[in-house]
Amino acid sequence: MRHLPQPQKALIKSLYTRHGRKKTGLCVCEGLRCCRELLQAAPELVRFTVCREALCPDFELSPVCYEISDREFSQLAATIHAQGILCVAASPAFAGASPTDDFLPVLDRVGDPGNFGTILRTVRAAGLTELWYTEGSVDPFNDKTIRAATAAQFSLRLRGFPDLDTLAETAREYGYRAFYLTDPHAGVNLFTEPELYTKSVIIIGSEAHGVGEVTGAKRVTIPMPGRFESLNAAQAATVFLFEYVRRHAESG
Amino acid sequence: MRHLPQPQKALIKSLYTRHGRKKTGLCVCEGLRCCRELLQAAPELVRFTVCREALCPDFELSPVCYEISDREFSQLAATIHAQGILCVAASPAFAGASPTDDFLPVLDRVGDPGNFGTILRTVRAAGLTELWYTEGSVDPFNDKTIRAATAAQFSLRLRGFPDLDTLAETAREYGYRAFYLTDPHAGVNLFTEPELYTKSVIIIGSEAHGVGEVTGAKRVTIPMPGRFESLNAAQAATVFLFEYVRRHAESG
Repeated sequence: MRHLPQPQKALIKSLYTRHGRKKTGLCVCEGLRCCRELLQAAPELVRFTVCREALCPDFELSPVCYEISDREFSQLAATIHAQGILCVAASPAFAGASPTDDFLPVLDRVGDPGNFGTILRTVRAAGLTELWYTEGSVDPFNDKTIRAATAAQFSLRLRGFPDLDTLAETAREYGYRAFYLTDPHAGVNLFTEPELYTKSVIIIGSEAHGVGEVTGAKRVTIPMPGRFESLNAAQAATVFLFEYVRRHAESG
Repeated sequence: MRHLPQPQKALIKSLYTRHGRKKTGLCVCEGLRCCRELLQAAPELVRFTVCREALCPDFELSPVCYEISDREFSQLAATIHAQGILCVAASPAFAGASPTDDFLPVLDRVGDPGNFGTILRTVRAAGLTELWYTEGSVDPFNDKTIRAATAAQFSLRLRGFPDLDTLAETAREYGYRAFYLTDPHAGVNLFTEPELYTKSVIIIGSEAHGVGEVTGAKRVTIPMPGRFESLNAAQAATVFLFEYVRRHAESG
């Protein structure tokens, strides 16, 4: 067990900014659940762990484990109820392997880290392996996004694109040819659309910006008997993801 | 247009505490969307509105409209990006009418205002009219819960109970006899359980505490192909609520 040196302390602080993450290719993953998930999913990415003494024996998988006092910890970590542990890890990089999922969920300019992270977690729970997103979305390796996702980003393939057109082009190259734009008010009903999950791309926008355009795309909507304004983006994504799970179980 | 007097200012500040809400029976509803929803759903509950000059003409439905400066507004309101409007309203009270929904969604000790609010919003969107909850849950009229729900609390009937036993007793009196405890790992599959929404009670717990016990209740689970730890409570609730919407549309 070693004491956390000053340069590592400064590094951690810098990882709470987009600039710091971009410069180093690293990110900070906070809390017991998230660190456990990270260490299970991608131990090779972990550079070092910082924790309070009592927790450290659990984290022998980490290559280096530093110990700090409670006071120091709370100065360092963003979590309000800091659970006394954080890992510094490299953001995963992967060669452009072909996606194999039945469909690709896409987030178009979803800027809220809570929503983005919750959707990652739900994508992972639904058994999918990829999520694509456009510029204008939050950084998936933002500390808040990692917490909301309970570190699901380390076991998913996330691909960022400058805009929907570029994304659509790449999707077509991989054989994903049906494009669906989710819309709170208009379009075909997701529950009755037969080809919704057949080599398709399902694009979810933010509440602030809605969803962009893709040539030839179909609009798809969630029926809403309560005629309320709209669902939260993460709730809409959940309905799409678990309708897939339902159909998949039925046919499988 | 009048200037906001000191006692009203102090009142608003007190409504950010549970004690202040309890003492007055009032709550504070912030932001353009939430205030619009409140004024549409329950204008009779609104006591007064506070806004920046530009916004006030929109809010003629409010009995009294005070105007304040931007600086004063940001000192008063909790929202980080305050949209320059808030309403002070009475928490709705209602006589014990019989519930008429096909099933009753219940939140058992869900303490997170974001999750609780998001679930209220989704309950409303699904066309239901009631949500019941147990003590240990967050105050549904907390400002954060109202924002997360986009003020859906003003068009739902919310009933609080000291514990699940008391809640179950009341539900039985109203003819709701089947009890389901949602469980991340075990139980019947929600997608194939035929009687899931037939005069039933579906109980959702928090991630921290799980769900309590009810004699004779059945466990029900969401299949999770990704074998991830669990879904966020609000995502699990959404799957239950929109599986109901799907079946209802199919049969209706």
